[in-house]
Amino acid sequence: MANYHNLSDVFSATETSLSKSLFKSPPYHSFTALILEVSPNPFPNTMAQDLSFNLIIKNNINLETPIIDPEFETLKSRFNGDHIYVAGHVLVYPSYNGFFEKPGLYLDQLFVRNCYRGLGFGKILFSVVASQAASNGMGMVDWLVANWNEKSMKFYEKMGAHDIPEYRLCKLYGEKLQQYANISR
Amino acid sequence: MANYHNLSDVFSATETSLSKSLFKSPPYHSFTALILEVSPNPFPNTMAQDLSFNLIIKNNINLETPIIDPEFETLKSRFNGDHIYVAGHVLVYPSYNGFFEKPGLYLDQLFVRNCYRGLGFGKILFSVVASQAASNGMGMVDWLVANWNEKSMKFYEKMGAHDIPEYRLCKLYGEKLQQYANISR
Repeated sequence: MANYHNLSDVFSATETSLSKSLFKSPPYHSFTALILEVSPNPFPNTMAQDLSFNLIIKNNINLETPIIDPEFETLKSRFNGDHIYVAGHVLVYPSYNGFFEKPGLYLDQLFVRNCYRGLGFGKILFSVVASQAASNGMGMVDWLVANWNEKSMKFYEKMGAHDIPEYRLCKLYGEKLQQYANISR
Repeated sequence: MANYHNLSDVFSATETSLSKSLFKSPPYHSFTALILEVSPNPFPNTMAQDLSFNLIIKNNINLETPIIDPEFETLKSRFNGDHIYVAGHVLVYPSYNGFFEKPGLYLDQLFVRNCYRGLGFGKILFSVVASQAASNGMGMVDWLVANWNEKSMKFYEKMGAHDIPEYRLCKLYGEKLQQYANISR
């Protein structure tokens, strides 16, 4: 994903740093990842339920040409055995907006690996997020899009999402966060 | 707050609906409210610690003219006794951004009641949010501002916040959320 954004030189997260800050709560109570795994073979009936993974959906897709995954060795499923590969992921967390009566899900990341694009997996991931929000009593899914990303903006429009052009994201971080924190100390 | 946004006719949240969806976790693990209370008298030494409220800061401010709060009867502190009034509040929840190694706090609401404005309370509330983020190991505070709100944008700029004009907020809700959820079912 850092490569996709041309930001691999500034990306410093490691497996340890990520697992420290993520995934300490039940699904959708805090940061929650959904993993899209694919296999050329039928999926086993017993998925990795013992690791407190919840299987959300299982779909069959007929492809005209086989997928060639150049990184299949490093992106093998860590939990579900051989010939199962990670094709993408989603990271969400619960959000709140004072004018909605219900909380929502904020979508921080939705990523489909290069060789798996154009097959409708993005749509499946989005739809799963929407269904998980709805079935957990949440009223909305929010995310950000860059205004130069016309392809994505069209996709979201078709989906029925509202984009709110007058909102700007403000971010206070680093030294400035520390400086401002000191005012009230 | 609904009045401030000219949206009181669409605002349907009640005390019951809010307490159902908020405040089930320890502070900063999920949705967290900070309340700004003021009093013309010195604050009691024993605040409402028994209600699992945490006192964050206690400040004295010398005013040139006394504040007249037209709603002081209905906005009395519910927890800390007589002659203590609610002047404002903040609602935050933990957020995540893939390019920061640490989680952050997302600021959904920061509100100072009309008769308490212009006294620096907004700055105090912002600063407390920054300090709570920093002392809880978080790396950022995020919020949205409307691009026509020049006064606020200047305030945030002075504070050292970055605003990211190319990001747009997308929101999927209501019927459209349900429709999209059904795709993967």
